[in-house]
Amino acid sequence: MSKLTDLPKRILIGEALRSDRLGETLLPKRIALPVFASDPLSSVAYAPGEVLMVLSVAGFSAYHFSPWIAVAVVVLMFTVVASYRQNVHAYPSGGGDYEVANTNLGPRAGRTVAAALLVDYVLTVAVSVSSGVENLGSAIPFVSENKIGVALAIITLLTMMNLRGVKESGKIFAIPTYVFVVGVLATIVIGMFKAMVLDDEMRAPSAAYEVVAEHSDLTGFALVFLLLRAFSSGCAALTGVEAISNGVPAFRKPKSKNAASTLALMGGLAVTMFCGIIGLAMATDVKMAENPAKDILINGEPAGGSYHQDPVIAQVTAAVFGEGSIGFVILAAATALVLFLAANTAYNGFPVLGSILAQDRYLPRQLHTRGDRLAFSNGVVLLAVFAAVLVYFYKADSTKLIQLYIVGVFVSFTLSQTGMVRHWNRHLRSETDPAARRRMIRSRAINAFGAFFTGLVLVVVLLTKFTHGAYVAVLGMVVFYAMMTGIRRHYDRVSEELAIADEKGDDVIRPARVHSIVLVSKIHRPTLRALSYAKLMRSDTLEAVSINVDLHETKALQRDWMERGIDVPLTVLDSPYREITRPFIDYVKGLRRESPRDVVSVYIPEYVVGRWYEHVLHNQSAFRLKARLLFTPGVMVTSVPYQLESSERAKIRARKRAEWNAPGSVRRGPAAPAKPAKGEKSAPKK
Amino acid sequence: MSKLTDLPKRILIGEALRSDRLGETLLPKRIALPVFASDPLSSVAYAPGEVLMVLSVAGFSAYHFSPWIAVAVVVLMFTVVASYRQNVHAYPSGGGDYEVANTNLGPRAGRTVAAALLVDYVLTVAVSVSSGVENLGSAIPFVSENKIGVALAIITLLTMMNLRGVKESGKIFAIPTYVFVVGVLATIVIGMFKAMVLDDEMRAPSAAYEVVAEHSDLTGFALVFLLLRAFSSGCAALTGVEAISNGVPAFRKPKSKNAASTLALMGGLAVTMFCGIIGLAMATDVKMAENPAKDILINGEPAGGSYHQDPVIAQVTAAVFGEGSIGFVILAAATALVLFLAANTAYNGFPVLGSILAQDRYLPRQLHTRGDRLAFSNGVVLLAVFAAVLVYFYKADSTKLIQLYIVGVFVSFTLSQTGMVRHWNRHLRSETDPAARRRMIRSRAINAFGAFFTGLVLVVVLLTKFTHGAYVAVLGMVVFYAMMTGIRRHYDRVSEELAIADEKGDDVIRPARVHSIVLVSKIHRPTLRALSYAKLMRSDTLEAVSINVDLHETKALQRDWMERGIDVPLTVLDSPYREITRPFIDYVKGLRRESPRDVVSVYIPEYVVGRWYEHVLHNQSAFRLKARLLFTPGVMVTSVPYQLESSERAKIRARKRAEWNAPGSVRRGPAAPAKPAKGEKSAPKK
Repeated sequence: MSKLTDLPKRILIGEALRSDRLGETLLPKRIALPVFASDPLSSVAYAPGEVLMVLSVAGFSAYHFSPWIAVAVVVLMFTVVASYRQNVHAYPSGGGDYEVANTNLGPRAGRTVAAALLVDYVLTVAVSVSSGVENLGSAIPFVSENKIGVALAIITLLTMMNLRGVKESGKIFAIPTYVFVVGVLATIVIGMFKAMVLDDEMRAPSAAYEVVAEHSDLTGFALVFLLLRAFSSGCAALTGVEAISNGVPAFRKPKSKNAASTLALMGGLAVTMFCGIIGLAMATDVKMAENPAKDILINGEPAGGSYHQDPVIAQVTAAVFGEGSIGFVILAAATALVLFLAANTAYNGFPVLGSILAQDRYLPRQLHTRGDRLAFSNGVVLLAVFAAVLVYFYKADSTKLIQLYIVGVFVSFTLSQTGMVRHWNRHLRSETDPAARRRMIRSRAINAFGAFFTGLVLVVVLLTKFTHGAYVAVLGMVVFYAMMTGIRRHYDRVSEELAIADEKGDDVIRPARVHSIVLVSKIHRPTLRALSYAKLMRSDTLEAVSINVDLHETKALQRDWMERGIDVPLTVLDSPYREITRPFIDYVKGLRRESPRDVVSVYIPEYVVGRWYEHVLHNQSAFRLKARLLFTPGVMVTSVPYQLESSERAKIRARKRAEWNAPGSVRRGPAAPAKPAKGEKSAPKK
Repeated sequence: MSKLTDLPKRILIGEALRSDRLGETLLPKRIALPVFASDPLSSVAYAPGEVLMVLSVAGFSAYHFSPWIAVAVVVLMFTVVASYRQNVHAYPSGGGDYEVANTNLGPRAGRTVAAALLVDYVLTVAVSVSSGVENLGSAIPFVSENKIGVALAIITLLTMMNLRGVKESGKIFAIPTYVFVVGVLATIVIGMFKAMVLDDEMRAPSAAYEVVAEHSDLTGFALVFLLLRAFSSGCAALTGVEAISNGVPAFRKPKSKNAASTLALMGGLAVTMFCGIIGLAMATDVKMAENPAKDILINGEPAGGSYHQDPVIAQVTAAVFGEGSIGFVILAAATALVLFLAANTAYNGFPVLGSILAQDRYLPRQLHTRGDRLAFSNGVVLLAVFAAVLVYFYKADSTKLIQLYIVGVFVSFTLSQTGMVRHWNRHLRSETDPAARRRMIRSRAINAFGAFFTGLVLVVVLLTKFTHGAYVAVLGMVVFYAMMTGIRRHYDRVSEELAIADEKGDDVIRPARVHSIVLVSKIHRPTLRALSYAKLMRSDTLEAVSINVDLHETKALQRDWMERGIDVPLTVLDSPYREITRPFIDYVKGLRRESPRDVVSVYIPEYVVGRWYEHVLHNQSAFRLKARLLFTPGVMVTSVPYQLESSERAKIRARKRAEWNAPGSVRRGPAAPAKPAKGEKSAPKK
């Protein structure tokens, strides 16, 4: 019945470009690390500071708790990395947390994770850009004086880059990420060396200041609560860890193994950097406060509104290399760049998730298409607008934004890990090989611990941060969840309405005859083309219809028609109000009333133009007529295009658009030429 | 050949509504006066004040020139009214200044007049609303304290009313206009009576203040220049006189005669009111200054920024009736209302002019359609935006806006009157009846004097006001002129491109066969409908094509196709990137390459939906595919609509839209059921 892929195959094979692309997009580990890890690695730029700030509420003395909090974050990081290593092996398709939750825990959990991730993408942009601007501001005073403006400018820049479809090349990510990692590690090593071997007293810029305790002498529950809050803030270091699990298809083979080792490497680096910076901050006496204007004392006086609190990482590098030194400037620049790359990650992650959600009909179907520029553009603009609104209202203050950030991450961590436990349970039911069973039981244990720990952190985050801003993130999740549910319900309802009632599909009334009408305004090439095409179709009857909006033109048309001897009858409709649409619709309705079983086929000659303003000048009446005709049952509308010379421009533009690189294409890996998916992917979804 | 109006006639006659409308829209004189004269009559609300303000530059002593200026304005008004009475008789079609200039002086003059009128409409809105707000402010302090906001709110309100298509009923215009006219006349009579008979000393609120001369002791050329400037400002009273000449078809029979007497009545009223107010202003010692903050002295001190200078008309009524008295409040309200109605006039006049310009292809063709809501909406919004921008930048200051106003009016006056002279010259060449010749020579003399006088005023206005703001209006005219020229040039170029080269029209290649393709995604009602329609068309070949974006769905489709035994071959195109457009376009192009003389006919099943968000959820891929297919030569695209239940909503909406009343329909008169136009209208245009 189907002559599957004979001509199309030839056409496809003819295109050499596609396979080129394929090779190009497979990532070796050394490139995959910066592509996927710029988000989690960059978070060490703000996470240590957040910990110190929360602790400062109880005064400088509480800073000595910070190593313990660092330990807790490290344990959590190892747990999460170990858990995701299981994910990567079990789900090499790159579906990520959404797929895991959706497959194993059902659509509600899936939608919850999806909503959490969408909120997360927005916050990744807002937090990373704000923090990047703060880091840049530590080296360039102008930036810290115009934080909001600079942050919005960066968001605009990222948006424009992604709208244009700048190719996300691994190299662009690699250089600043490696400079950042090497720089931070060097700072830590040199700092340690100076402190321990040279016994050099390094002083952070804020070392001489004092921190006022908002609540001194916290004890018992209050202290525990504060420590938990500090820990929650430290958890910001874990954001973005799940990115690799979305990107397995982009790795070189063996994909899962490479992805797992990249994960481990990333975890190790993040932990080292996080602890190193906390350590150096302690060694150099960095002082941070949540409300520096009030709680930082300079020479015994409150610092006041003009005081800019530089990020911990900037203060530490200033202490080690000296403020304004070349090392300090390079690190500040690299930090800012890595943070902007982390923001860009969200621009790339969004379409990937959107496409998967569209496939499950939670989002408009056109997002499904992988290379659809318009759909992506809408997504990119939406993401940017949300992020910009947050940046604006939170005044580009990363500390305030982070309060919103971590909820979404831990919702998806928890649900994903819980889903993995179910996954192993299901596989254990059928697996008989003892070695495989042992591996599965081990994996299940890791994921179970991961689910338990991340769930615990989620509860802690919600408890300690809800009133500090996390409620905004929860609200955002609820909105996204409701939207996805609504869209899915709409598609289901329509699909029901369109379903064929009986088995044979006979409930669609078979029309008897076709009455063809060619819409004519004057005799020119488009009209003649439409007439000759309509004649080719050999419908039962064929007439030309013109609407008399100007008597002179109509008379000229009739004369011309006669002179040329066109063998199609011409009907003229009167239109006292010089309208096109109403008289024509009335005429068509009249035809339908006369013979209800007939179909009316309307041919409209259309000019194809290339410039935007030409659209205003042409076809407007035709477009509106078409739109109205579609509401008339038993009518089909045929556009017979006539390409004006200027349409060449639009063609060239369209070709350029076709070569456009969708954001996220690198991290999604090459497109699989649609062959049957294996394993989990073809497992029936609930 | 043409079976002109057999079925359509039946349909038309069946609609009783149309002839109802016809009777309703013909205006008796007593209603026509307020409809057309609200603009010129309302200008007496600001014109007298403008004269006094300019004179105040030379100090209070210069006020004694004001009667002379009033006399000059009266002479000019009589000249213009007498001239337009000739227009109304010669051009009963209602084409107005544009038609007169275009027919008699050629398209350049026509475009110049059109550009002037467009600028004028914008300024009518800006000036009338600003002045209305000032008058309202004389009674309500809140309004004068928030001038810009209130003015923008009024513009928004007028815009929304006109977008919704509130029917411009004569009565709505009649009441406030007559209240205003009667009120002003009563004020003048009572004032005169009090002053002359009772010898009552009436004092305007500003009577006790002093006016500082910016230039005292002006003599010679400088004084003449100042007097000319004052006269130019007084000419604001003439704006809108030409409106009646656009509206002749809306009058009851004898149309021209009624229009001419209405013109005379309007001129008489305007002159009486203008002179009366100037006279009362002199009698009650009104003090006005261009910069009241600086040049008005209260108890010897400059009035300062907080001083609000009330319009002359408000000061005069305050003097006659007492400030805050019932008479004062009623007149202030009536004045404001008449001014807002005058602004509304521009909303009504714009589409009338737009439609005529579109007919001559100076504006997008769809404006031509008389009842086209979308086209009108764009025009209404554009008008409102321009006016709002002016109001905002000139801070709703009617005095500053008036500097821009008068140029356009006098450009169209002058060109129209010059055109009329040519008109009579042409007619005199063929006319032999001595009585008719005598009438024509008399008319020509009147128009010639009109052209000379208005031309002189135009020169004076340009000289005295160019640097005061008139250059903005000139700039606006240049822009509109260039735009219209560009649009016309574009249409001409396209029309050339579309023209058929040889006489027989054989240069369009006749295609040989039709290859039909039905785009299929799954088997549901829309698909079956598209298939059955396509089969009806009996093209040479017919196949169904599906794009494999999801292997499971594709396999299900193929199975379903087989099971149902659909007798159309199904081709599946591979799409590794899950695109729809590219693989399909490539396939169609391949077909065209194989047999270039064939035509490909693509059937796309389309969902017709009713809610805006459903458009986002459906058809997006189809729309984009369609747009791209139009660029591929030799392809026609047929939409086979399937009306979803929700489409009923949109149908109801569309029906409501169809019953919408276009702004300006009252003043355009009833639509002539397209019959041959007589007289001037059918004269060939150059």
